[in-house]
Order: sequence, then structure tokens, then C-alpha cells
Amino acid sequence: MAAYPPALLRLITNLSRLPGVGEKTATRLALQILRWPREEAVELARSIASLHEKVCLCSHCLNFAETDPCPICADQSRRSDQLCVVEDPAALMAVEKSGVFRGRYHVLHGLLSPRDGIGPQELRIKELLSRIPKEGIREIILALSPTAPGEATAAYLRDVLNRSGVRVSRIACGVPMGMEIKYVDEMTLRLAIEGRRDLSA
Amino acid sequence: MAAYPPALLRLITNLSRLPGVGEKTATRLALQILRWPREEAVELARSIASLHEKVCLCSHCLNFAETDPCPICADQSRRSDQLCVVEDPAALMAVEKSGVFRGRYHVLHGLLSPRDGIGPQELRIKELLSRIPKEGIREIILALSPTAPGEATAAYLRDVLNRSGVRVSRIACGVPMGMEIKYVDEMTLRLAIEGRRDLSA
Ligand SMILES: [Zn+2]
Ligand SMILES: [Zn+2]
Repeated sequence: MAAYPPALLRLITNLSRLPGVGEKTATRLALQILRWPREEAVELARSIASLHEKVCLCSHCLNFAETDPCPICADQSRRSDQLCVVEDPAALMAVEKSGVFRGRYHVLHGLLSPRDGIGPQELRIKELLSRIPKEGIREIILALSPTAPGEATAAYLRDVLNRSGVRVSRIACGVPMGMEIKYVDEMTLRLAIEGRRDLSA
Repeated sequence: MAAYPPALLRLITNLSRLPGVGEKTATRLALQILRWPREEAVELARSIASLHEKVCLCSHCLNFAETDPCPICADQSRRSDQLCVVEDPAALMAVEKSGVFRGRYHVLHGLLSPRDGIGPQELRIKELLSRIPKEGIREIILALSPTAPGEATAAYLRDVLNRSGVRVSRIACGVPMGMEIKYVDEMTLRLAIEGRRDLSA
């Protein structure tokens, strides 16, 4: 039986290591890259190769950045006494895009998940705690996903942070904008009802 | 509003150019590559960069290969008078994996699709026709997908090839192995019934 040429198999193997990319998808992507003009493939290769050279972690918020401090931590117009705790850089970007938060961030780089062997030591919690006195933090907003690991992490952080005397809150869980009630799962609906806001005058 | 660092955005842009990869997926993949050990990212970059250098089209079957002729066309144990026509290298691999075909292939690199502006000139049909006298082809099996473009291409090739005096057939359409009848769409079922095989002794 014939096989794809070795150079193609090598790329398929490498692409298969990406999360959510099985062998079929990797094959489809590799064949597509092969159809691209050569310069575009080279540009993709270069952008991957230069990623680790250029991108580092901000030593304050631990977000990915090309400068340290990152643009957000360096922005003097943002509140310095308010931290928004997120699980990863993608969550940070989502909060940032909402445009409603004008303080600084702290990236945990994960969520507690005992069955995956991820305990408090695996997350950037120590760094979070050390920022509170150093930066004079007064309020911490937990912007963690309403999932089992998110709940576990929020519960753990609530206990730890309450001891530090800082004000702690967690973003609301509810029905997302634009979604019809009939498509919302019961857990979300329960939390949405429990978290109902009074509109009476 | 903050943005991802430029090096990350560059990779996200490049990955978004892949089919089926939207900005969200590209972002997820780029962030994952950033989490990899640096050597693994470099290896992925190298495998992409070397792809176009190493892989060419076999001048006989037009399949991707690192040699010309490709291993299949060079294999003397395969029938040389039988061609299996496929739309692309992935389809060729699927047929080859079935293990049932022992002739050679011809890759069209596409299917007819008037509304996408893909006519006979865009496919490798001229090359197919020239192989018939040159290689003494006697039978051509059309292994084209039972889709609208596949049907159009098969109909077109049937007419063209019938004029050349070669025997033309098309692979059967029917219920796939392991699938329950109740989940099969009506078009497939109709074709499966029309193509029923006599089992009477
Ligand atoms: Zn920062
Ligand atoms: Zn070949």
C-alpha cells in the first residue's frame, strides 16, 4: 500500500500534536499548505519559528507579551488596585474585548482539576498572592468559567483571598446575550434565576 | 483595548488562511504552539518550510510525491492498463487503503463546479486523455464522490472517455459499512436500491 510522501507525513505528524487536530484534519491542513504558493507556506513556517523568540510572559500579570511589563500593565491610565483573575490569555482577551474592565489582570495559566493532577501548585496563585501587598490590590474579580474546574478554582481562591483581606467577587453566570431561553441548559438557567436582578422601581 | 502580541497575531493571521480554520481556531492553535517546548514549534516550522522543497507532482499520475515517477507509477507489479481517476491525493489514499485496486491512478486535482468557475480546463483532464494511447490504457474507473460536482465530473468524463474507446466504470454508491439503514439519507438509499446486486442462486 502506498503512503503519502515522507515530508508530508512529517508535517501531518507535527500538526496532529495540536489540540483538537486528529490525523484526518492534520492531513487536510497539510495537503492545503502544499497547495499554497510556496512563499505563503514559508511565511507560516517563519511565524511559527519566531513565536517563541518574540513572545514572553509579562512578569506582572503573566500574560503573553512581547514587552515586560506588557502594554496593559504599563498603561498608567488603568486602575492599579483592581485585578481580574483569568484562567488563560484567551480569557483575558475576551474580558478585555468587553471593554468594561479598566484594571489589571492576573493569568493563572490553568484551572484546578484534581483528576488531571492540577493542584494549586500548578497554577500561578503564589504570584497572585504576592501582588496583593506589593501593588496595593484592594479588589479581585474572578472571571473564571462556570465549569467544574472553574468552580473549584473560584472556591479555592475565595478562601485564600478572603484571608488576605482583599475584596473578592466573581462574574455572573446566566443566559448569554442573543440566546433563546429554550436552548439554555438547566444549570445555567438555575444560576441565572438565582442571580436575578431586581428591576422594581 | 489590548491585543495579542504582534508575533502571535501574525501566526493567527497565517493559520486563519487554512480551510475550516476561523480566527477562533487559529487563536487556539497559536496559543497552544506557544505553550509547546520551543524545539517542537521549530520542528513544526521546519516541516512546513520543507514541504514545498521536497514534494512535487508525479508527471504520470499527478499525485504528490517526492520522486518522479511516484512509488505507485514506478511499481512494476501493478497493472499498467487500468487507471483509477480520483479528485485529489486524499481520495487516492482512501482508494489505496481499501487495497482492492492494483492498477495506477490519475489525480484530477478538483471536480467540475460551474458555479465556482471550475470547468474542464481547470482539471487535469487533458493529461488523462493523453495517457490513454501513451500507456495503452484499457479501463478507467471513476472513483469520484457521489456529490453534485462529482456527478458533473463523472458525466463529463463518461462522454469524453466513451469517444476514446476505453472501458469506463464508476464505483458504486450505497449504504456505507456499519451504518444503520435508518440513518442513511434517502438519496443514498435510492442509489443503493437501484444498484442492488442479485444474490439468487
Ligand atoms: Zn502584564
Ligand atoms: Zn505517479
